[in-house]
Amino acid sequence: MRHLLLTIRYRGTRYHGYQVQQNALSVAQVVQDAVEQVFGARLPVKGCSRTDAGVHANQFALTLYTERQIPCPNVVRAMNVHLPEDIAVLDCREVSDTFHPRYSCTGKRYLYQIWNSPVRNPFLTDLALHWPHPLDAAELDAAAQGFLGTHDFSAFCSAGSSVEDHVRTIYQASVSRQGELVTFSVTGNGFLYNMVRIMVGTLLQAAREHLGAAEIAAIVERGDRAKAGVTAPAHGLYLDRVFYGDMEDRPDGTVDRP
Amino acid sequence: MRHLLLTIRYRGTRYHGYQVQQNALSVAQVVQDAVEQVFGARLPVKGCSRTDAGVHANQFALTLYTERQIPCPNVVRAMNVHLPEDIAVLDCREVSDTFHPRYSCTGKRYLYQIWNSPVRNPFLTDLALHWPHPLDAAELDAAAQGFLGTHDFSAFCSAGSSVEDHVRTIYQASVSRQGELVTFSVTGNGFLYNMVRIMVGTLLQAAREHLGAAEIAAIVERGDRAKAGVTAPAHGLYLDRVFYGDMEDRPDGTVDRP
Repeated sequence: MRHLLLTIRYRGTRYHGYQVQQNALSVAQVVQDAVEQVFGARLPVKGCSRTDAGVHANQFALTLYTERQIPCPNVVRAMNVHLPEDIAVLDCREVSDTFHPRYSCTGKRYLYQIWNSPVRNPFLTDLALHWPHPLDAAELDAAAQGFLGTHDFSAFCSAGSSVEDHVRTIYQASVSRQGELVTFSVTGNGFLYNMVRIMVGTLLQAAREHLGAAEIAAIVERGDRAKAGVTAPAHGLYLDRVFYGDMEDRPDGTVDRP
Repeated sequence: MRHLLLTIRYRGTRYHGYQVQQNALSVAQVVQDAVEQVFGARLPVKGCSRTDAGVHANQFALTLYTERQIPCPNVVRAMNVHLPEDIAVLDCREVSDTFHPRYSCTGKRYLYQIWNSPVRNPFLTDLALHWPHPLDAAELDAAAQGFLGTHDFSAFCSAGSSVEDHVRTIYQASVSRQGELVTFSVTGNGFLYNMVRIMVGTLLQAAREHLGAAEIAAIVERGDRAKAGVTAPAHGLYLDRVFYGDMEDRPDGTVDRP
């Protein structure tokens, strides 16, 4: 049996998240439709993450088992023929039997895009949050450092999560500006339900109330969801990078040199 | 009577061009709907250009006359409330009676975006041409210099144009790359029907046949539409900038210092 790792990119606008759902279109369902066309069977597909409705992915990993000997470059081409325009397969490679797109993952990086201008951007309607009030990216970048380190992030987890261990490590957090586009980038070993979106809501609160890194760190320490900001909308969020430490560089910045 | 100049930005995907058409949605029609809501009357609106179906605008100028004394910032806000998400009013200002968005225009800049990668980009489906064959931006930038100067651009004009004078001046032409996005930028005192899209088709031909600036200049001089490239698709094209020499800087790079 070949174990294939496919890397895809998708625009989440039309989808009710990655995971298959009854009566709602999901990325996984559409990928499985294409897999059925290419491999001749409706193979089970495992994803690296559940993304919410409207969330995008610059890089998303999924795996499947097949007996078919289609060369990897041909899998990429054939899948892209059968997928709709808002999903693209970027890469296909064979991985070991023990690889799991979710459990082998050593970290993830998310981006959150904010169009920061009095007037909306017609090209970013579903791709960035429109925030008309001026944001000081340098001030927010300083505040975002309050997320760093290993903490119980219960204050940054929406109700409805079944995960019991809320301890996560954040390796990197930054806010930068290019023209009117403000981007929040955050890398960690794992993320709780809605964690990045609550971080963004908290940064927007920090902008309003001029909170710094110490105040952000205090909100993390207190562990009270009510003290953190609102959950920012899904359409600004991108799963940007999925790290597999044994394959290439790691989320904490260390790199395997063979 | 106040004479108002509105600057708008729009994503052209849903529209059959700027100009009002029977049985097809146009940008002008949707703008006039919003004008009617804001000004209480269906006022005639004059645009700076006819853009084709699917073409976008980062900056597009239009004018209208009104008796209503709504302050300009309020016009911007009210128009944006009544316009759909894919059209935005960026600016409103009063101009003299003699100003005309088309005839006062001293030049325009267009951009053409190409997603140059073997795999399509789900975020740029309707915003950039997907071109899978490798492009050498430096080579194309050199070739694009063959467009510069004052010439009869008949080789770069689609049939169906009613304009008789085909002489235009190109001040600037460049090709640059940012990652997998290749952008052609061109500024001139005016453009013929499909001129920029034929320039792009010719540059893609130049990439295939390794043509340089001299060969591009020769295609311009020969004046034979059949010797230029195909008309590139509309969805990569942006009207980027409309110049009014008496108001600010000019398309040829000279600037009025008051």
